[in-house]
Amino acid sequence: MKKIINSTEAIVNEMLEGIVKAHPEHIKRVEGFNVLTRVNSPIQGKVALISGGGSGHEPSHAGFVGKGMLDAAVAGEVFTSPTPDQVLEGIKAIGSDKGVLLVIKNYSGDVMNFEMAAEMAEMEGIKVDKVVVNDDVAVENSTYTTGRRGVAGTIFVHKIAGAAAEEGKSLEEVQKIAQKVVDNTRTMGMSLGACTVPAVGKPSFTLGEDEIEMGLGIHGEPGTHREKLSSADELTEYMLGKILEDMSIEKAEEVGVIVNGLGATPLMELYIVNKKLHSLLEEKEIKVNKTLIGNYMTSLEMPGFSISVIKLDEELKRLLNAEADTPALKEI
Amino acid sequence: MKKIINSTEAIVNEMLEGIVKAHPEHIKRVEGFNVLTRVNSPIQGKVALISGGGSGHEPSHAGFVGKGMLDAAVAGEVFTSPTPDQVLEGIKAIGSDKGVLLVIKNYSGDVMNFEMAAEMAEMEGIKVDKVVVNDDVAVENSTYTTGRRGVAGTIFVHKIAGAAAEEGKSLEEVQKIAQKVVDNTRTMGMSLGACTVPAVGKPSFTLGEDEIEMGLGIHGEPGTHREKLSSADELTEYMLGKILEDMSIEKAEEVGVIVNGLGATPLMELYIVNKKLHSLLEEKEIKVNKTLIGNYMTSLEMPGFSISVIKLDEELKRLLNAEADTPALKEI
Repeated sequence: MKKIINSTEAIVNEMLEGIVKAHPEHIKRVEGFNVLTRVNSPIQGKVALISGGGSGHEPSHAGFVGKGMLDAAVAGEVFTSPTPDQVLEGIKAIGSDKGVLLVIKNYSGDVMNFEMAAEMAEMEGIKVDKVVVNDDVAVENSTYTTGRRGVAGTIFVHKIAGAAAEEGKSLEEVQKIAQKVVDNTRTMGMSLGACTVPAVGKPSFTLGEDEIEMGLGIHGEPGTHREKLSSADELTEYMLGKILEDMSIEKAEEVGVIVNGLGATPLMELYIVNKKLHSLLEEKEIKVNKTLIGNYMTSLEMPGFSISVIKLDEELKRLLNAEADTPALKEI
Repeated sequence: MKKIINSTEAIVNEMLEGIVKAHPEHIKRVEGFNVLTRVNSPIQGKVALISGGGSGHEPSHAGFVGKGMLDAAVAGEVFTSPTPDQVLEGIKAIGSDKGVLLVIKNYSGDVMNFEMAAEMAEMEGIKVDKVVVNDDVAVENSTYTTGRRGVAGTIFVHKIAGAAAEEGKSLEEVQKIAQKVVDNTRTMGMSLGACTVPAVGKPSFTLGEDEIEMGLGIHGEPGTHREKLSSADELTEYMLGKILEDMSIEKAEEVGVIVNGLGATPLMELYIVNKKLHSLLEEKEIKVNKTLIGNYMTSLEMPGFSISVIKLDEELKRLLNAEADTPALKEI
């Protein structure tokens, strides 16, 4: 295993320290916990958003802490859900008079631990609601999940619900908008190879020289099938097809897209995918309002990518394009 | 070779199309050429900045085209200098009444072709000046270079000289500031493995299971030596040491730093490096004014990273923190 680390035990703590050192204008740490919050938390008069999950998906989620997106991110060990007490500390650190929305990716451990933390927070008098993100169209149920997995589409939830919170909407309203994002977002991913979880020390699976895994999860969970590597255009067409099969988008409707790198895929290749993605959508007379392209929801050093599509109405479009100022996503 | 492409011949053209599709608010293409410019080029009353080089270093340089940084980026084939006629088209597309500054990374091919284009542009009546970036402290002379190589420190030139141009300074003034950035910037890189140039189809070198190359260039050019992989802290201390040996920074002086991923290194690992980098600088009582962290100057899917340090005076600090709005770097 070739990694630029000091020890597997120290990874999460040292990473969090490095994040705070890099972005002191955005982020501070809740002392003694693996929780990062906005520097000016708690912000009264605004619904606070918290997300998190296992580490290894950077910049998710700490990179999205800042104005117009998240108020806090909780970091578990690599590919491991954060414990309820860590999530509770996050909720307490950002809990405002308007309440806290939990943005949970649909993994059984995350859902259980975030819900347990929510119950404890409510007992302490903090108003809490939640949304569970399950955008991955590849498979129903998976290694760590009942139902569909939450993957890169989560970024749309952070952005849009974060903007709604910034507008001063109520917890009920922000939750409703977050759920609308989930209902209108779909993602499909693929991988050229595995990543190595540091504590394990070897790749989580192996693929043949010319082989890819289609529909893979962001922890290396199995996808739908393995196949021979085809062209960027063929991959894009297949993956977009799977996404559009699962949602109803009419001509002249507008979408936002994410072409997300899983960690080791050059931006060059993501742009080649993006060219085809746009031309396929143009053929269908679907208008792209916004393209996010880069490493947003990674899987350590996994080579591969995912495509996310969100169907936009006027409200979602306005919020998607609203101002944001976070380390990993700024909207001016 | 496992890459998400359609054909090696189509890579650069398709990538450029994908960039324009992703960032239509920032970037347009000069039709028929591998040149991307700001959408509102040429901008009269402002010195225009152009950079470029071989492709494969994305987001460099097209990702830095936009307000407060570059006016144009010229893309050669992968790891190959753009031809003089391509550079000339770029200069012509952005050439304003105040002239054009060429930001050239110090590779023999780039320097020759950009200089040839400058001569042709001058014959067409466009005022041109240049700066050659040579921030890599690792080696004197190299596979493609006489003198030191230009690497990730180039981002500081784009940012600071771009901000100076935005302020309405003259070509002579912007050139002087760009040269001041070069004089005060140093970079050192290392790699855990090679990348594969698509047209070659196999990795450009091989390293042992536990072996790294120290001082490697962004095209896989040899570094200073190979050694056994040590800890993130030891690597950071060694690399920062090499940088500081080569520049004079006193206590209480301020710097900007870039912790740059070469393509396949998780952000997690860059943050671990950043933690140590900041604590080493704190020990020396050197203040970090600005940290850029992520993939800025890549080498396709190479695993590894570089550290860049710029010594700041008040003018450089102001310009480094001035507003910028580009796909890969926004400063609010």
